[in-house]
Amino acid sequence: MRVAELPQITADILMRLRARAPRVHCVTNAVAQNFTANVLLAAGAIPSMTLSPDEIGAFVARADALLINLGTFDAERRDSVAAALEVATEARTPWVLDPVFIDRSEQRSAYARTLVGQKPSAIRLNAAEFAALSGLEADDAALTRYALDTLAVVALTGNLDRVTDGAQHAVVENGHPLMAKVTAMGCAASALSAAFLAVESNPFVASAAALLAFGVAGGIAGERATGPGSFTAAIIDALYALDDTALREKARVR
Amino acid sequence: MRVAELPQITADILMRLRARAPRVHCVTNAVAQNFTANVLLAAGAIPSMTLSPDEIGAFVARADALLINLGTFDAERRDSVAAALEVATEARTPWVLDPVFIDRSEQRSAYARTLVGQKPSAIRLNAAEFAALSGLEADDAALTRYALDTLAVVALTGNLDRVTDGAQHAVVENGHPLMAKVTAMGCAASALSAAFLAVESNPFVASAAALLAFGVAGGIAGERATGPGSFTAAIIDALYALDDTALREKARVR
Amino acid sequence: MRVAELPQITADILMRLRARAPRVHCVTNAVAQNFTANVLLAAGAIPSMTLSPDEIGAFVARADALLINLGTFDAERRDSVAAALEVATEARTPWVLDPVFIDRSEQRSAYARTLVGQKPSAIRLNAAEFAALSGLEADDAALTRYALDTLAVVALTGNLDRVTDGAQHAVVENGHPLMAKVTAMGCAASALSAAFLAVESNPFVASAAALLAFGVAGGIAGERATGPGSFTAAIIDALYALDDTALREKARVR
Repeated sequence: MRVAELPQITADILMRLRARAPRVHCVTNAVAQNFTANVLLAAGAIPSMTLSPDEIGAFVARADALLINLGTFDAERRDSVAAALEVATEARTPWVLDPVFIDRSEQRSAYARTLVGQKPSAIRLNAAEFAALSGLEADDAALTRYALDTLAVVALTGNLDRVTDGAQHAVVENGHPLMAKVTAMGCAASALSAAFLAVESNPFVASAAALLAFGVAGGIAGERATGPGSFTAAIIDALYALDDTALREKARVR
Repeated sequence: MRVAELPQITADILMRLRARAPRVHCVTNAVAQNFTANVLLAAGAIPSMTLSPDEIGAFVARADALLINLGTFDAERRDSVAAALEVATEARTPWVLDPVFIDRSEQRSAYARTLVGQKPSAIRLNAAEFAALSGLEADDAALTRYALDTLAVVALTGNLDRVTDGAQHAVVENGHPLMAKVTAMGCAASALSAAFLAVESNPFVASAAALLAFGVAGGIAGERATGPGSFTAAIIDALYALDDTALREKARVR
Repeated sequence: MRVAELPQITADILMRLRARAPRVHCVTNAVAQNFTANVLLAAGAIPSMTLSPDEIGAFVARADALLINLGTFDAERRDSVAAALEVATEARTPWVLDPVFIDRSEQRSAYARTLVGQKPSAIRLNAAEFAALSGLEADDAALTRYALDTLAVVALTGNLDRVTDGAQHAVVENGHPLMAKVTAMGCAASALSAAFLAVESNPFVASAAALLAFGVAGGIAGERATGPGSFTAAIIDALYALDDTALREKARVR
């Protein structure tokens, strides 16, 4: 993929999402569940959020992609992840790891490292979480090395979003400062990445495209919002309406 | 009830709700809890959402209606349902069953069938859930038969909403396509049905009126919203302001 | 503090919050988690919401204030509170108790009384909860006596908000009727009080200022909203933009 083609590719993936309505099962934190479900619906996917270890296998078996987000992690979620990954691995279902707040808890950080060993398609995280996960400062060389070591796409979000599979690199400059003032924005970006993986087999392309879609939607929302409360609704409206024209006009990728 | 009277009856029930502020206890899924509480408050009811098996009996004993929603079902919710139904049955508190996603998990489907045996006042569900629950395709004859068999009002929502107690039938054509693009809309409709049951003793009337109120509010919201994000706030605003004039002008029931 | 200075003091605390971005860890109910996180972010704080007893100590150890809210209380939350308070007490981290719905459950009420013995900086509650906690009717004399007995600031919210540490008293008349029509408004006010305690060492001042900030934001939101749905976004927007001019012009304190 040439990065210049990313806006059009992103529009194509969004069209596939809306046409196919893939199922995305989410093990995610209590704060993010509602917003994540609404972001997935706005993009065209069908979310499910059941956590019970007894039932999660049945949901993952019928899902097209899986999200594992470590926010508000607890015993039930840990058991659920084990059950979910067993099914996803067997079925080769793509999955995204979002190691929320692993910089706050050594126990969570150690657990995240074991999950990386179970071969996520992509890892979406911020700089502090990357440092806690890899032991490396989050510069381009470290991202490349970590992607090569883990065979996962690494998607680092912040003022800029940087995505790499070790061989290819993309930088997305879209987004808006209010995204840091609303909870679960990163969580929702990870869920959107899982939805993109459900309809796009190249995980680097899927991850970069998802962050571009979310960033462009965030930029549009930022123009309309009067603060973080109205921004929350506006980014969902913008994602729902996102099309190739907006993506081509507004994308800032390299 | 003649169906033509449903708009005025719905307005009357809403007035009673606002005057009496009944308590509605909800065992509901993690994704829906916040939106459900806000829908209930907008309609005039007082929601509570405690799940702990130790405490739920105390909450249900003081409640005027109960919702049991099977989304994100887990061990704690299962224990809670048992404790809640014991109190509700003893006190003859009306309750609504919402068998979310039972088409995805045979275990959940089997459990839902045992709950139907505990005599819900109404069951609110979609066509796939009805098929999983009853083994029948969701046509009018099957809804009638299932209502007669279970002695519950069956409220099937979708592009049209169909409500029956086996003897009486109502079809509500209100609503808006964006309702399918926001999570927990069906869950909230079930909760609203429970609130209506708290102040209207005829479960068929209460269920049909609740779906009409929610559908008309959804239609008004759809005229104002610019996407599913703004729709979420707009349907709550519309429900809060809903009156007999809007119900009479906009209701499409038969 | 002279109460007339409260608007300017509140503006100063908000500036400190935005500059320092303190961490506020919240044990709070499932209904309130998302809205609470967004209120904290809008005010300038960094929320975390992990409940697992295994990890909560690590989060509280890195936090500048703690909220303990008893809504949707369950076994996991009870174990979490014990672990959280052990760390907070050792580190002298300020914490706020919000005894949600203790008037509905004697078990919860008894538990809340044991928590009061662990010396919260402030207790934010409504009149029914105050009665269940203290055995007293919620008049000024009772608030004063309870504050002196417990050494906690008592912040009673309702049509008026009354705050006292037993020696000083403030009444805040701001706010808006729609605040009673949106779930988790009281919960968010408690969380905001915890954030203010993170940057203001006088708990009476911090509590009164937090309620003034939230009440003024609520008043501004009420002017803009068309119902409780739009109010939810509007109060977050208003809190995010709140400044000394709005506080001085709109504050009604005595």
